[in-house]
Amino acid sequence: MVDHAPAARPATSTDVARLAGVSQATVSYVLNDAPGVKISEETRERVRRAAEELGYAPHASARVLRKGTSDIVLLPLPPFQIGGLFLSWLNDVGERLRQHGHTVVLYGDTRSKGVAAAREWAQWRPAAVIVEAHRLTRAAVRQLYAAGTATVIAIGAEPSPLVPTLLVDDYGVGATAADHLLDRGRTRLAAVVPAEPGLDAWGERRLAGVARAAAARGLEARRVDLPFDEDAAAALAASWAAGADRPDGVFGYNDDYAALLLAALGDAGIDVPGQIAVVGADDQPVARLVRPRLTSVRVTGRLDDDAVAARLHEMIVSRDRDPATVLPVNDFAIAQRDSG
Amino acid sequence: MVDHAPAARPATSTDVARLAGVSQATVSYVLNDAPGVKISEETRERVRRAAEELGYAPHASARVLRKGTSDIVLLPLPPFQIGGLFLSWLNDVGERLRQHGHTVVLYGDTRSKGVAAAREWAQWRPAAVIVEAHRLTRAAVRQLYAAGTATVIAIGAEPSPLVPTLLVDDYGVGATAADHLLDRGRTRLAAVVPAEPGLDAWGERRLAGVARAAAARGLEARRVDLPFDEDAAAALAASWAAGADRPDGVFGYNDDYAALLLAALGDAGIDVPGQIAVVGADDQPVARLVRPRLTSVRVTGRLDDDAVAARLHEMIVSRDRDPATVLPVNDFAIAQRDSG
Repeated sequence: MVDHAPAARPATSTDVARLAGVSQATVSYVLNDAPGVKISEETRERVRRAAEELGYAPHASARVLRKGTSDIVLLPLPPFQIGGLFLSWLNDVGERLRQHGHTVVLYGDTRSKGVAAAREWAQWRPAAVIVEAHRLTRAAVRQLYAAGTATVIAIGAEPSPLVPTLLVDDYGVGATAADHLLDRGRTRLAAVVPAEPGLDAWGERRLAGVARAAAARGLEARRVDLPFDEDAAAALAASWAAGADRPDGVFGYNDDYAALLLAALGDAGIDVPGQIAVVGADDQPVARLVRPRLTSVRVTGRLDDDAVAARLHEMIVSRDRDPATVLPVNDFAIAQRDSG
Repeated sequence: MVDHAPAARPATSTDVARLAGVSQATVSYVLNDAPGVKISEETRERVRRAAEELGYAPHASARVLRKGTSDIVLLPLPPFQIGGLFLSWLNDVGERLRQHGHTVVLYGDTRSKGVAAAREWAQWRPAAVIVEAHRLTRAAVRQLYAAGTATVIAIGAEPSPLVPTLLVDDYGVGATAADHLLDRGRTRLAAVVPAEPGLDAWGERRLAGVARAAAARGLEARRVDLPFDEDAAAALAASWAAGADRPDGVFGYNDDYAALLLAALGDAGIDVPGQIAVVGADDQPVARLVRPRLTSVRVTGRLDDDAVAARLHEMIVSRDRDPATVLPVNDFAIAQRDSG
């Protein structure tokens, strides 16, 4: 085994100070970018070069202990099954929080909740924790605030009763799809709810949105449970081809499930949109890859990423812990194509 | 603004010791799960309950400073465009590293590289850094080792000359697709390379794999640059429909690009697979949602996630820094469907 370590002992700030010919305090000021301290650019450059030569990096832990809290914004990850889209958005907002001076850490723990989770997160003394609402309990929030966290922010489809909420409205997705189908004269609506555990809760919120829009016009919406499986989709299409209780407008939960159903309807000889109009959601690439092309609900930003990051930053620095603070982040539009 | 903080001063381990009626050392042993210390379950329970009541969490930073290094495995994220699949795999392996006692942190900084990146990562005094090979330089590695990192592990399509590598063979994807097409009698091969920046490098590796397999049989493979855009795909299909230099077997880079091309070929009246066979890669849901269903290269694990995590754990605890350590993680199979 080859050992590439240049030295047995990691370099310290004292080593850097000696090499640069400055005090240890100056090293600390320069490398931590301390505001309000006048140090010439030439000296700064000398310190930086010495640090680089010795491979010295300032110690985040020492800084945390000195200040009591860190500048960490901790984002415990959602499970990947709920979608790369959401994660990618989270990452985009995270990049912008970095520009506000925060250190964004996506914490790779997708399952823990409540006090056990809070205790683990609290170890990092984060300035803020932004996490799915269902993982928070009153005791968990208390634990984080006791550890000096400035604010905990929930991500959820409803305002959290415990903390401020980044409101990701999932009901609106279903309501927008239903309104589109109803506007085009469809009256017998059905909504797909994925049978996969973890997705069903999301599906039920979108279904509730469909039902709400239908009820506003004195109509009902039927629930169709569907696993992501070609045989199940074929069986459903066959029953509808036989005329059994056939809807004339279907909201497919998202573009993947809608495309699955669309293919099965085509295979079963059902005309889309002639006999059944199909609408997906999330406006994913697949919507343009299938025939007929899939009409989809596009989730747009009510606030762009810069605005979301700016508001989050503001909530963190003002230690906003008020559950009345609710930041709705999304809005909806129909991407009109050929399936409905 | 409502303030839910229960107390102005965060609780300390001294407070916990007082409430539980034990020494501060006992609190530290219990809450840090110190091995080899005999403490009755009853006492442990009392300490845990006191910590919970006071909202006290042990301080990761204090532990890091005491030990010099942390148990953090830092995974600076790849950009999201290269795929949820890879990220999801990274997360699955991360979950298993957690079971080996590591704290897995996905660091939300997708762009920085070299010494600047290393300095930022080194602040966390990570036990290990696992990161895309192209973000590492010799100086970056030196910096991390100087900060006490046990090992740096590169993720790449070729073995890193600097550190051990988790080898994610992307050439094999193209080679497997090409061998499949050649075995079925196709001789005029083309390979799609995405025109999108960031994806082109991945596309070129897969193209190189196609070319390698073709060359082994004395044939050539043509490069087709294609943006993910319906008009561009339609123009390409139209030129092939007009007979211009038409291939009889196309590797579509991945299932999304292959499905885009498949739809355009169908719209242009070209028979798939009769006139052109199309093979995608990554075996994504979309492959079963299009007609004809898409034949795809499935990337399988040469090692399962448990084995990868176990090997990484071993490399970390043994401080394996040897560039000769190369861990190939993937293998390939054809998911046979109707398009080729």
